[in-house]
Amino acid sequence: MNSTAAEAYEGMVPVDEALGMVLRAAACLPAISVSLQDALGLVLAEDIRAPDPLPPYRASIKDGYAVVASDGPGEYTIIAESRAGNDGSSVTVTSGTVAYVTTGGPIPDGADSIVQIEDSKLLSSTIDGVKRVEIRVAVQQGHDIREVGSDIEKDAVILKSGELINSAEIGLLATVGVTMVKVYPRPTVAVLSTGDELVEPFTQILGRGQIRDSNRAMLLAAAVQQHCKVVDLGISGDNEDNINKMLDAAIDSGVDVILTSGGVSMGDKDLVKPILHKKGTVHFEKIFMKPGKPLTFAEIATKDKENAKAVLAFGLPGNPVSCLVCFYLFVVPAIRYLSSWPNPQLKRVHARISQQLRTANDRPECHRAIVTWKANDGSGIPGFVAESTGGQKSSRLISMKTANALLELPPTGQILPAGTSVQAVLISDISSFPLVQSVNEMTSSSSLPGS
Amino acid sequence: MNSTAAEAYEGMVPVDEALGMVLRAAACLPAISVSLQDALGLVLAEDIRAPDPLPPYRASIKDGYAVVASDGPGEYTIIAESRAGNDGSSVTVTSGTVAYVTTGGPIPDGADSIVQIEDSKLLSSTIDGVKRVEIRVAVQQGHDIREVGSDIEKDAVILKSGELINSAEIGLLATVGVTMVKVYPRPTVAVLSTGDELVEPFTQILGRGQIRDSNRAMLLAAAVQQHCKVVDLGISGDNEDNINKMLDAAIDSGVDVILTSGGVSMGDKDLVKPILHKKGTVHFEKIFMKPGKPLTFAEIATKDKENAKAVLAFGLPGNPVSCLVCFYLFVVPAIRYLSSWPNPQLKRVHARISQQLRTANDRPECHRAIVTWKANDGSGIPGFVAESTGGQKSSRLISMKTANALLELPPTGQILPAGTSVQAVLISDISSFPLVQSVNEMTSSSSLPGS
Ligand SMILES: [Mg+2]
Ligand SMILES: [Mg+2]
Repeated sequence: MNSTAAEAYEGMVPVDEALGMVLRAAACLPAISVSLQDALGLVLAEDIRAPDPLPPYRASIKDGYAVVASDGPGEYTIIAESRAGNDGSSVTVTSGTVAYVTTGGPIPDGADSIVQIEDSKLLSSTIDGVKRVEIRVAVQQGHDIREVGSDIEKDAVILKSGELINSAEIGLLATVGVTMVKVYPRPTVAVLSTGDELVEPFTQILGRGQIRDSNRAMLLAAAVQQHCKVVDLGISGDNEDNINKMLDAAIDSGVDVILTSGGVSMGDKDLVKPILHKKGTVHFEKIFMKPGKPLTFAEIATKDKENAKAVLAFGLPGNPVSCLVCFYLFVVPAIRYLSSWPNPQLKRVHARISQQLRTANDRPECHRAIVTWKANDGSGIPGFVAESTGGQKSSRLISMKTANALLELPPTGQILPAGTSVQAVLISDISSFPLVQSVNEMTSSSSLPGS
Repeated sequence: MNSTAAEAYEGMVPVDEALGMVLRAAACLPAISVSLQDALGLVLAEDIRAPDPLPPYRASIKDGYAVVASDGPGEYTIIAESRAGNDGSSVTVTSGTVAYVTTGGPIPDGADSIVQIEDSKLLSSTIDGVKRVEIRVAVQQGHDIREVGSDIEKDAVILKSGELINSAEIGLLATVGVTMVKVYPRPTVAVLSTGDELVEPFTQILGRGQIRDSNRAMLLAAAVQQHCKVVDLGISGDNEDNINKMLDAAIDSGVDVILTSGGVSMGDKDLVKPILHKKGTVHFEKIFMKPGKPLTFAEIATKDKENAKAVLAFGLPGNPVSCLVCFYLFVVPAIRYLSSWPNPQLKRVHARISQQLRTANDRPECHRAIVTWKANDGSGIPGFVAESTGGQKSSRLISMKTANALLELPPTGQILPAGTSVQAVLISDISSFPLVQSVNEMTSSSSLPGS
């Protein structure tokens, strides 16, 4: 209770430096083997080779006729029908004959090109049941044929260690017969709320001095969105023994990341910081940023000797906005780093602000905003436009509602006029952001329902 | 087998028109009640009001002292310590006294402003144990106090029906005591692969004419990424009875969307199209687009009379690229529409192509690309740059690998020079795309590990 204003600014670490400390303390989790469907969203931990070429046989690109190209247009006897699967395996197409083929089906020996069905006319069957067809165009040798290995060569590396497994990659793995795959898992994240004022969200009538715990549900959801396994540690009052016990239980259960909220300010009941100091190495306690100043980060060594690893502990601020902003800026990159992402950092774009914004004069600010792509961003060309979510008090969680970006504003204390281009950290998937209406300005599909 | 080239172009529906047909056939799924954590990623189906104000009591923004502002700097007796929770409830601060308060804690009656701890100095205790503090600054009335309801007013609507529930929204719901919430569910999607050539992905040695089924695993993964429940219908050979039976089983089990792949070309074993014609109303069979021409869409009425609804059936092309592109362009908006998204359409941005691209001359093309934000997009200002994923044959699934966008290229047959601005449909979350390295160009954090 005897610090001074000067001391309060001491030890404030710039955001970039703080993130560097977090990532240097993090170690990639060891790879595991999972089934194909469980690999979705994870980073591959091995190179994948194709054991056979694709296509494994000469395949038709079209429905039509396998022909000898030099025969040219004319009437021909259909000697076989080679569809998908094992049809037509014993057939040889010779000059003067053709075989019916379907898309993706094998091409009989002897044929060297395909005439699509649209360029043919089936003739009425003769009395002896022999089918004949009129071929109406000339084609080059190899026309509409996928040669063996033309999509994927045998033994080619089709996916590399370090690549993210998305739905197309799942398809590629299935194509080459890989149904178990080595990947880097996502970390397990434990979440604890601290504070004597906190009660469970289901509490209907609040007593004096009570508020419902919003941070824990919010952080658990945010970690789930990052595909983490989560452990709910509940609420602890401002009691050192109790907080200690809960953290020890989480560490013993093998979690990779611990998130606490509350207890990191300068009050005499702010116990998380001193506890983290006793449990491990505290890398920083304050960051030079608004909101989120009192963020504490510690690395806690575990006794687990076989699998020596440190638990990353984030003492997040109790204010819900500061808490969530710190989650995005520091915890998300840490989760990605633990999961072996080649580049764990948040993506940044530039956006023009739709209204003037006053910047803070003491600390760089992460201003919550909704970023939308516009056919005209105000400068006459397409670009992102950023709209502030309004009042930016750090207790005002409503300012995070629908926000998909944090604008990085310099601490000049000046007013940025509307149209100023600023850097925006993307915190939400802008490819699937339901409230953003920009598509209407750009496509001719305004008659669609729901748009 | 007797169609002509002219007939082949007949009935090709432009992409926008086809999407309109899909969305008009779709009906929003009825709302359900789920627990708070299960609401993540869903659209809210009710307005949410705050039953009490936030903060529910006058709360301190800082750790420090609750004072009577008019007292000004000087030495004061600390008459109480009001921390978080129910402390200090019976205390009244009068002129000449102060109370210790912590961030978020209640402010005792009588006090009208807060002096932060950094602007104070605790004096050594007197012999009688009474604590005294030196207040070093003058503050305005109301300074660093959050008034009752200043973040959220009692009875305010904090979330509206139609809003997407993200982690911040989960926090808001917890804040106002909502632990069960009405939401619109995601649809259940069934996936069937068809084709005599298909074998299970675990097949190690391929017989003649066989390929492994990649579409089913890929589509199941893609539907999971859209947060859908999925039903794996397996593989069916090109057998009408069998395909029929599998589709009936899926419909009877109550799925909302059926995805088949294969069987929609012009071959005589392409049975999906005729089956869909028998089962329901086919809205289109071909789209004017490359890749993906033979996409069939049907609406199948069900006998489920209590919950009258149509199943949306997409006969996707067998070629894996066409299959996945059609999934993004048509199935994703349908899933979003069923899930009551206010705007179900895919987001579009503009991007400058990094290399020249030849456009097709027959149909508009969806060219697979990796879109990255650059500090200089080639025109001297920040913007998206699009890099082609290479050869665009529709059998070449590797062209979808790491692709996060589809470039919409007009069918001019011309070469677009490098630097041309084109429209790009985002198909992947660019806020979390591990291979995109653009952040390094924009921040000073190049010394971070992993970047
Ligand atoms: Mg506290
Ligand atoms: Mg087929």
